Amino acid sequence: MSRIIRVGGAQLGALNLADTRDVAVERMIALLEQAAAEGCNLVVFPELALTTFFPRWNLETPEEVDRYFETDMPSPETQPLFDRAKELGIAFYLGYAEREIEGGQEHRFNTSVLVNGDGNIVGKYRKVHLPGHAEFDPKRAFQHLEKKYFEPGNLGFPVWKTMGGLFGMCICNDRRWPETYRVMGLQGVEMVLLGFNTPATNSQRPEEADDLRGFHHDLSVQAGAYQNGTWVVAVAKAGVEDGHKLLGGSTIVSPAGQIVAKSQTLDDELIVADCDLDECTFYKETVFDFARHRRIEHYGLITQQTGVVRPDAAE
Amino acid sequence: MSRIIRVGGAQLGALNLADTRDVAVERMIALLEQAAAEGCNLVVFPELALTTFFPRWNLETPEEVDRYFETDMPSPETQPLFDRAKELGIAFYLGYAEREIEGGQEHRFNTSVLVNGDGNIVGKYRKVHLPGHAEFDPKRAFQHLEKKYFEPGNLGFPVWKTMGGLFGMCICNDRRWPETYRVMGLQGVEMVLLGFNTPATNSQRPEEADDLRGFHHDLSVQAGAYQNGTWVVAVAKAGVEDGHKLLGGSTIVSPAGQIVAKSQTLDDELIVADCDLDECTFYKETVFDFARHRRIEHYGLITQQTGVVRPDAAE
Repeated sequence: MSRIIRVGGAQLGALNLADTRDVAVERMIALLEQAAAEGCNLVVFPELALTTFFPRWNLETPEEVDRYFETDMPSPETQPLFDRAKELGIAFYLGYAEREIEGGQEHRFNTSVLVNGDGNIVGKYRKVHLPGHAEFDPKRAFQHLEKKYFEPGNLGFPVWKTMGGLFGMCICNDRRWPETYRVMGLQGVEMVLLGFNTPATNSQRPEEADDLRGFHHDLSVQAGAYQNGTWVVAVAKAGVEDGHKLLGGSTIVSPAGQIVAKSQTLDDELIVADCDLDECTFYKETVFDFARHRRIEHYGLITQQTGVVRPDAAE
Repeated sequence: MSRIIRVGGAQLGALNLADTRDVAVERMIALLEQAAAEGCNLVVFPELALTTFFPRWNLETPEEVDRYFETDMPSPETQPLFDRAKELGIAFYLGYAEREIEGGQEHRFNTSVLVNGDGNIVGKYRKVHLPGHAEFDPKRAFQHLEKKYFEPGNLGFPVWKTMGGLFGMCICNDRRWPETYRVMGLQGVEMVLLGFNTPATNSQRPEEADDLRGFHHDLSVQAGAYQNGTWVVAVAKAGVEDGHKLLGGSTIVSPAGQIVAKSQTLDDELIVADCDLDECTFYKETVFDFARHRRIEHYGLITQQTGVVRPDAAE
């Protein structure tokens, strides 16, 4: 049986502070319909796809923060997206800011869901690697306050068996961390879905060459794909949001680590590729046959210590 | 104080079965002298630099195998290399096949040493990730019997404080495994030295496009460098050994993951770069500040299980 998934990477252009959920959902539905016309089975939307990338702003009051978060998914505003996808029989990945009240405690996560072609949420992921900082930083060219607005994800990196394959999710900065892909690789993942919002400028090094940001994005995604023999679909929110430029470069990467589709704009844009999950097999059974080649007895530091401990030995 | 190391990557062309150690050592000394003339402080030689890449041959008798192994380092044949490097005040990395008799037991490793500018061995590394297979495989276009000739390294991935910085070593296939760099990164490594012998053809997929081997090499090394904010110096034995072509592509990669020097031939060739160890700092203190960003509570599988365990949950 063929295991080819026709994937659409549904890049979104800018969403400004003034844009409501309705604007975002309307644009996502348009991309979804384009994907349907092109025969896609699965569409990947960006991280925090419903609003502007608000962690660049230092929001002061709970009310200011709350307006960017969803307490239900689907919500009234996103229900039309769920409905249309179900009608079209298209599965999708959607990133959003999640507010959860559990046992009287409020929790906030940077979250994504995987919705199957029947409209059911089959998986939820909460971003583990939050970049940036927790308090206003006057030294930065602009803020990146993800550690203020979100808790680190508490669901790990699950892999779901669905659509005839093994699917994982991660979000934005997770893609720079080889641990992200490896934990999913150890569960046999065949396709990793990820949305991102990446400022086009390094807030701590504004003089950095323009192309370095895109290079680091590609490098991380391509290495993660190759080193685990998996497809990776990485989809941006791109463009200039209220004067702040986000990187584009949405990309679909094969288990060989090669880019098979890439966005050409910073606007709403659909990239499409036929992704044969069976292409993973060669890598998983040869150079990255983990069972034969990994040596966990030498990996201890990876899970024993969080930060750097330098060797004491002097010359 | 400046922490710029002028590194020479001393790629070697082919060594055939008929070539003795003397041939290899003479060519290495020539590269060492060229490196001295160019002001290098440190020279990196390839993996198994003293002989042909013998794991491509299915050697039958202990005598056939033994001839490729060193029981002492320096050995009589390599002493001139150690002497000349000491005279020139150049540190070096050297890969060789190591035979050790310990408690009456014989052990064989794919080994490298780091020798400082005073001629002292300051570090030893034994290859952890042995590629290939342990028994003759009639299905392969040629053999890759590293698992027959070597035990996996038993020294882990140490990092040494020397030459004003933090240095690590790995060998060939180790470079494809993000665990390699991460274990050293967690010790603050600033420069990873690695030699390799990589067949230009994939023995299990001879029809693979030519450029894919070099791409996978670059991708792995560049990602390892960037994701740990470290220099990586990767040096090939290259060229056609008794009809078997080895990949070249010796490369020096910056902590930004960018290639700053690359070999242009498959022959003896020196590549040189000024590597400022302080360039690591920006990455180690921002995007890859492990202490702030890593989440080891979600990495457990990496050290708990060697091979893949697929999720049971069905759709």
